[in-house]
Amino acid sequence: MQLARYVGPNGIVHTGRIQHGRVQDIPGDPGILDLLTGPDQLRRDLLVRAGKQQRLPLEQAVFAVPVQPRAMRDFLVFEAHIAGMKKNEPGDGGVPPQWYEAPAFLFMNPWSVVPTGADIPMPPGTRRLDFELEVAMIVEHTVRDVPLDEAHEHIAGFTILNDWSARDIQADEMRVGLGPAKGKDFANTLGPWITTPDELEPYREGDRYALEMSVAVNGEVVGTDNLRNMSWSFEEMLVHASRDAWVGAGDVLATGTASQGALSERWARAGGELVIPPLQVGDVVTMSVQGLGSIRNRIVETVSPDHRVPAARRTYGADRL
Amino acid sequence: MQLARYVGPNGIVHTGRIQHGRVQDIPGDPGILDLLTGPDQLRRDLLVRAGKQQRLPLEQAVFAVPVQPRAMRDFLVFEAHIAGMKKNEPGDGGVPPQWYEAPAFLFMNPWSVVPTGADIPMPPGTRRLDFELEVAMIVEHTVRDVPLDEAHEHIAGFTILNDWSARDIQADEMRVGLGPAKGKDFANTLGPWITTPDELEPYREGDRYALEMSVAVNGEVVGTDNLRNMSWSFEEMLVHASRDAWVGAGDVLATGTASQGALSERWARAGGELVIPPLQVGDVVTMSVQGLGSIRNRIVETVSPDHRVPAARRTYGADRL
Repeated sequence: MQLARYVGPNGIVHTGRIQHGRVQDIPGDPGILDLLTGPDQLRRDLLVRAGKQQRLPLEQAVFAVPVQPRAMRDFLVFEAHIAGMKKNEPGDGGVPPQWYEAPAFLFMNPWSVVPTGADIPMPPGTRRLDFELEVAMIVEHTVRDVPLDEAHEHIAGFTILNDWSARDIQADEMRVGLGPAKGKDFANTLGPWITTPDELEPYREGDRYALEMSVAVNGEVVGTDNLRNMSWSFEEMLVHASRDAWVGAGDVLATGTASQGALSERWARAGGELVIPPLQVGDVVTMSVQGLGSIRNRIVETVSPDHRVPAARRTYGADRL
Repeated sequence: MQLARYVGPNGIVHTGRIQHGRVQDIPGDPGILDLLTGPDQLRRDLLVRAGKQQRLPLEQAVFAVPVQPRAMRDFLVFEAHIAGMKKNEPGDGGVPPQWYEAPAFLFMNPWSVVPTGADIPMPPGTRRLDFELEVAMIVEHTVRDVPLDEAHEHIAGFTILNDWSARDIQADEMRVGLGPAKGKDFANTLGPWITTPDELEPYREGDRYALEMSVAVNGEVVGTDNLRNMSWSFEEMLVHASRDAWVGAGDVLATGTASQGALSERWARAGGELVIPPLQVGDVVTMSVQGLGSIRNRIVETVSPDHRVPAARRTYGADRL
C-alpha cells in the first residue's frame, strides 16, 4: 500500500492512496499512521470507499509531507559513503574502527521537513550546497528496547529523504565536535509518500531490500547505489535506536547517504576538487528509489535576512580555574 | 511567575503556579504555553482563581515535565567547560577556533525527557555515567529568522536541564564524527518548573543573568558556576538556531554544560584520572540554579534487556568504486 498526504480539490491536505498512477482520496481524512494502526476492518472499508472516490492523476497531485516526525534520526549505514568521505578528512583517510561496531546516528531538526515539489531556498552564507540521497523508515508505534525478531512489527513503511547539506557551514561546525547543526537544519525533503513493507516483498533479499537508488541534477544522473548495500538493516537500526531509549510513532530513522548519494563524496574522492559543481539557484534535484517513487525540488534564492550573532564573549582565563 | 506540571490530588497531571512555597492549582488545566500565550485577561482571571484553590506544599508535590518539546537543541556556550574538556582529547588541547565563531549546538532525543524525582536507570554497558548541569530556555512561539532585538519576545521561560551522559559510550560514538547518540539519548531531566523572564529581572546584568548554579552528588557539592559566564546570551542562541530554520513553540534551547557542571570536565583536567568517581546505582544527583529551583534524581539498576546489533556487514571493497 502507498499512502500520501496531498492537497485535495478543496485546497485542504487529505490522505490518499496511490494506485494505478492516481491518488484516491480516503474518506474522513485519517492520518496515515492512524489508518495503519487502526482496526483492520475500518481500514479495509475506507480503502474500498477510496477506490470509488474521484481519482487525481499523479502528475496533477501536489503532495504534502506524509508524516510530521517528532524525532528524526539520521544514520550512516553505507560503508562506501563513509569510506569516500574520509578520503579528504584529517586523519589516516580510513573508516574509523568505531564505525563498524554499531550504527551511529544523529538527531535532526524535525521542523525542517518539506515535501516533494517544495522550493528549497539557498541557505545564506554557503557556497557548497549539496544533497544526500537516503531512504527513511517511518516508525509505527512508540517503542523501547525492541528485540530484533520483533522490529519488523514496528515499521510503518518507507519513503525517500533528501538531507540537504551546506558543506562549508557543516565543516566548520564539525570541528567543534558536536556534529553538524546549521549545515543541515534548514531543509529535509521527505516523500513522496509512504510505501508499506508488504509492497517491497518482491525486492527482499534476506533482511535487505534490493532497491535501485539514483539522484539527478537538472535531469542528469550524478549518483546511483542500491539499498541492499546497507551495512545494518532497518530492523537493526530500530533495535539500536530503541536500546534503553524511547522511539516514537511517526519518528524517522534514515539510512544516511547512499554511496555516490552526495556531491561531497565525489569531491572527497577527487581530493577536494569540485568535479561536479555545488548546487546553484535554479538547479533541480530529483531522487528516485525503486518501489518508493521520486522526489523533486528546485533551489531558489534565499529568503533569509541572515541574522548573525557576534563571536563568543570570552569568559575563561587561565587564572579563573 | 513560576508554572509547573504536577500530579494533582486526583492523580492526574495538572498545571499549577508556584507561590509562597506552595503549588496552587490553575483551574481548567491549561498547558503552560497555552496559559502564557493566551489572552492576558484570561490568564489574570485563572491566576486569581488559582490563589483561592487548595495549595500543596512544595515538599509534597510530585512534578511532571513542564513541557514536551518537539526539538531540543543543546549548545556549548560555557568556554571554561570546553577548555577543560579539550585538555584530555586528541589534538593540541586548546579550544578549536571554530568554537568562538558561532554557538554550536546539536539536537537531542525529545522522547527522553523526565521530571525531577524520576529514577534514572543506569544505561546498560556504561562504567562512566555522568551528568551535565545546564539551564534550558523554553521557546514561546514557532519562529524563524528572529532578529536579536525581538528575540526576548519569544522566550517563555527557563528551567534546569540535566543532560545525563554515558561518557564511554559517547567517546566511541564521537570518533565517527556525528556527535553523541546512545551516549546521551536515554534521559534528560527537565524541571522542576518554568520560571518566566520577569522573575529573573533582579539577577539581570546586561543580556546575561547572574544566577549561581551548583550540582551535588549525595548531598556533597561537586561543581559550581554562574550563568553569567555564558559566551552567548539566550537571545543570541535563538537568533542563531532560527537563522534560515524553524524553531518551534515548546522547543528547548539549552546552554550546554556549565564549567564544573560535569564529572568528565574534572576527569579531563586531571589528565583522565577519575578524581571523582562516575555515578553508581543509588547515587542521588541534585542540581540547583538560583531563581529556578532544583532538580533531584536517583540512579537505579538498569531496566533495559540491552539488545545489541551485530557489527557492520561489509559492503565496500576497493574494487567496487
